[in-house]
Amino acid sequence: MKQNVYDDPEFFAKYSQFRRSLEGLDGAAEWPMLSSMLPDLAGRRVLDLGCGFGWFCRWARAHGAASVVGIDLSARMLERARQDTDDAAITYHRGAIEDFDFPEHSFDLVYSSLALHYIEDFDSVCARVSRVVGPAGEFVFSVEHPIYTAPAHPGWMPDSAGQQACALNSYQLQGERRTDWLVEGVVKYHRTVAAYINTLIRNGFRLRRFEEWGPNAQELKDLPELESEIQRPTFLLVAARRDPAAG
Amino acid sequence: MKQNVYDDPEFFAKYSQFRRSLEGLDGAAEWPMLSSMLPDLAGRRVLDLGCGFGWFCRWARAHGAASVVGIDLSARMLERARQDTDDAAITYHRGAIEDFDFPEHSFDLVYSSLALHYIEDFDSVCARVSRVVGPAGEFVFSVEHPIYTAPAHPGWMPDSAGQQACALNSYQLQGERRTDWLVEGVVKYHRTVAAYINTLIRNGFRLRRFEEWGPNAQELKDLPELESEIQRPTFLLVAARRDPAAG
Repeated sequence: MKQNVYDDPEFFAKYSQFRRSLEGLDGAAEWPMLSSMLPDLAGRRVLDLGCGFGWFCRWARAHGAASVVGIDLSARMLERARQDTDDAAITYHRGAIEDFDFPEHSFDLVYSSLALHYIEDFDSVCARVSRVVGPAGEFVFSVEHPIYTAPAHPGWMPDSAGQQACALNSYQLQGERRTDWLVEGVVKYHRTVAAYINTLIRNGFRLRRFEEWGPNAQELKDLPELESEIQRPTFLLVAARRDPAAG
Repeated sequence: MKQNVYDDPEFFAKYSQFRRSLEGLDGAAEWPMLSSMLPDLAGRRVLDLGCGFGWFCRWARAHGAASVVGIDLSARMLERARQDTDDAAITYHRGAIEDFDFPEHSFDLVYSSLALHYIEDFDSVCARVSRVVGPAGEFVFSVEHPIYTAPAHPGWMPDSAGQQACALNSYQLQGERRTDWLVEGVVKYHRTVAAYINTLIRNGFRLRRFEEWGPNAQELKDLPELESEIQRPTFLLVAARRDPAAG
């Protein structure tokens, strides 16, 4: 299923009020860590899967990328992305991540922020990313952490000592999850950590870095509401490189 | 701290009654998966960190290993291992995993089953494993899963819909955990999944395979008590190879 919840007026209106929508990359708590996992962008051809408002596309160009292609299914998000972009080396395509297709070695880096947990078939995405990046191409992405996507009924409750704990179950039951997030019945897909990693390996990638984002002491001081991120991670950040030895 | 809880008489008596103690490898639910992650052992020199009763040492020899060294801190376990072993190519050393030391490229495979979560300094273990295995050496191990080691007060509780869930918190708080397992106050060390992976990468390993063990349909039918393993994984299984490109 190709979901386009970002074009739902209620969802879009609410999402547009998020810090990451108003302030861009600096409004995303995980951005300092995710950006530290990127390769040098100078002269690189970049593809952004699920580019949204185009914040990363513009950032990549400002950091030396030769060209950037952003793909998103949301007409509303791309409309604003185009309004906010004045750069002929950035192009936006409306389309589903499930369908993107480019000739072999069209890009040096494929990037994706918090989009791939909406995609049912991660293996197919990895196979196409592997093909469109060159032999030493890079794949850097964030997704909702499997600990966060797993529960059948997400929630917090006191543990046996009265300390807040998240209720984790259904971890091994991969597949669709319907959750109420901004609107009712948003569809996400739960995969295990092992599934993310082994799918990357099977498609010729080797891991460079793997992070389960959590706030550092200063970030926690600045934004005390991030305390729940100490208890269980919400974001998985992955940097992988096409493995020349994998052929 | 070098813990030797396996020599505690009460702990040893209880542990000795486990299926994996009585039946060996076939009594360990995760063994079929872990064994499928091993390289071909023919002619390989093998080191087993935390060899216990020596089940794996003997299995490795029966599957073609040229020689096997088993290390364990428990005198009781090694006593039984020696009694059960009649093979000059298997040697047992009493010592802590924190202290093992062999010349460079002394082994082709380092194996460890459910021992490394007792070790505080995983980085130091990885550095020594990296040195004692050759340039294409293998490191295959299992540990208690970080989801299992994280909680401050492990336990189960109903989620908001009344379904059993494990209480997960303290995930980002790495370090010592004291739990009551067979005896009171057993010390384990919680690390995040990211810490396991990045420590391996930093020490020159590349992941070959990464598994969060859960029962398949047949295993669940045979042993219904494994149902909790569907809700959250207990075992993390890792196969890594020294990366020649990492130098």
